[in-house]
Amino acid sequence: MLSKSQNKLLRSLQRKKARQEHSLFLVEGGKAVSELLGSGWPLHSLYVSDSFAAAHRVALTGCKVPVTPCSVEALTAAGSLVSNRDAIAVARIPAAGVPQMQPGQWVLALDRINDPGNLGTLLRIADWYGIRQLVCTEDTVDLYNPKVISASMGSFLRVSLVHTDLHAWLAGLPEQTPVLGAYLTGTSVHQLSGDLQAGVLLMGSEAHGIDAGLESLVTQKITIPSFGAAESLNVAVATAIICDNLRRITG
Amino acid sequence: MLSKSQNKLLRSLQRKKARQEHSLFLVEGGKAVSELLGSGWPLHSLYVSDSFAAAHRVALTGCKVPVTPCSVEALTAAGSLVSNRDAIAVARIPAAGVPQMQPGQWVLALDRINDPGNLGTLLRIADWYGIRQLVCTEDTVDLYNPKVISASMGSFLRVSLVHTDLHAWLAGLPEQTPVLGAYLTGTSVHQLSGDLQAGVLLMGSEAHGIDAGLESLVTQKITIPSFGAAESLNVAVATAIICDNLRRITG
Repeated sequence: MLSKSQNKLLRSLQRKKARQEHSLFLVEGGKAVSELLGSGWPLHSLYVSDSFAAAHRVALTGCKVPVTPCSVEALTAAGSLVSNRDAIAVARIPAAGVPQMQPGQWVLALDRINDPGNLGTLLRIADWYGIRQLVCTEDTVDLYNPKVISASMGSFLRVSLVHTDLHAWLAGLPEQTPVLGAYLTGTSVHQLSGDLQAGVLLMGSEAHGIDAGLESLVTQKITIPSFGAAESLNVAVATAIICDNLRRITG
Repeated sequence: MLSKSQNKLLRSLQRKKARQEHSLFLVEGGKAVSELLGSGWPLHSLYVSDSFAAAHRVALTGCKVPVTPCSVEALTAAGSLVSNRDAIAVARIPAAGVPQMQPGQWVLALDRINDPGNLGTLLRIADWYGIRQLVCTEDTVDLYNPKVISASMGSFLRVSLVHTDLHAWLAGLPEQTPVLGAYLTGTSVHQLSGDLQAGVLLMGSEAHGIDAGLESLVTQKITIPSFGAAESLNVAVATAIICDNLRRITG
């Protein structure tokens, strides 16, 4: 049974301000919480249905935070999912520094991605392509928004995302760092040079593209060739296509 | 001002059964309706705000269907968008036959895609890659669902999608037609043969993959190589990556 104060905490963590105040965020649903339990991520508390508790007895016994049994109705009412038959975890927000360039590693830089579903999908794509570090503008949607965490399908456990002044971060990169920017015109991703072994891939929002102020920091404009009539691609779809081409040439 | 019967018609077209009965569907929002007006697509009626009417005077004068001026509140209340300041069109559902294989053309075949956002995004991706014909299982979400139309960003105007018995359609293809099926194991899309000039790309749902009963009709299993730890990719993202590789080798 959820107490009034527990319920209040869970509801409050739907809001960015409360997440920042408490340094806590929500992970919802059976699959995500189960993966979280196996990851060693620092937790604050757990809220579980009887069936989830029965299926995860060992993991729950091993974790050292309060575990509160809940009805399915209480889990659904306290969280952001349409229905939640399993669990909600309250997890701790880790401290995070801006990405450092490392040999052979790509960093994904995001300019003003406002849609939580898109950002979650971008984390999942980065995770598929072995990109461990993401950096984004301050006005990109919060990583710990429940919809971002949910859409990431567990990938938030393996990739980091830091909100920062993207202009300053790009300007401070080591010289010679390739910064590929996705535009509607530029070098076709089918013709990228195999010399590109590491660097930054910069993606802009669907509505606004890459901010004009960042353009001078882009070392190469790239584009996805079109063979039909659609005006554009969704930003997550475009990112996946570019990452696939980068991995194809660099392995 | 919307009459009671007009309002009833608009509301009813959110449901598949009513769309099928009337052979009508909704196109909502300024950009989509504006593109629709320019396409020559057969219409039934239009509902427009004053500002949309002012901005599209010529197109609206040229179209031969009833145009009803509406308040923004009435447009929003009658449709499925969170907010609609512009227009709703009631458009006619065209008759459609199953795809025929044509030289140099790829057909996208979809097995049980249930999410309207995914299906709309798939139409947009097909349109980007010049795929004009899509075919899907009977239990795939309805093409004329307002969320599909909205997510397609106008691409429903340029690509066709037919719901049919996918097994029978695949079994009836001309001999030697390549049928590429997306699986978690198979030939890497980075190593596809340049001989592949046309054929069928078959994609399964995220939850269930390609139905086991269709597997014997797949001539080549293909896969997207992973370089990280995510378990899977969203079906629209995966389709885009595969289409990009097919166009890279075939142009």
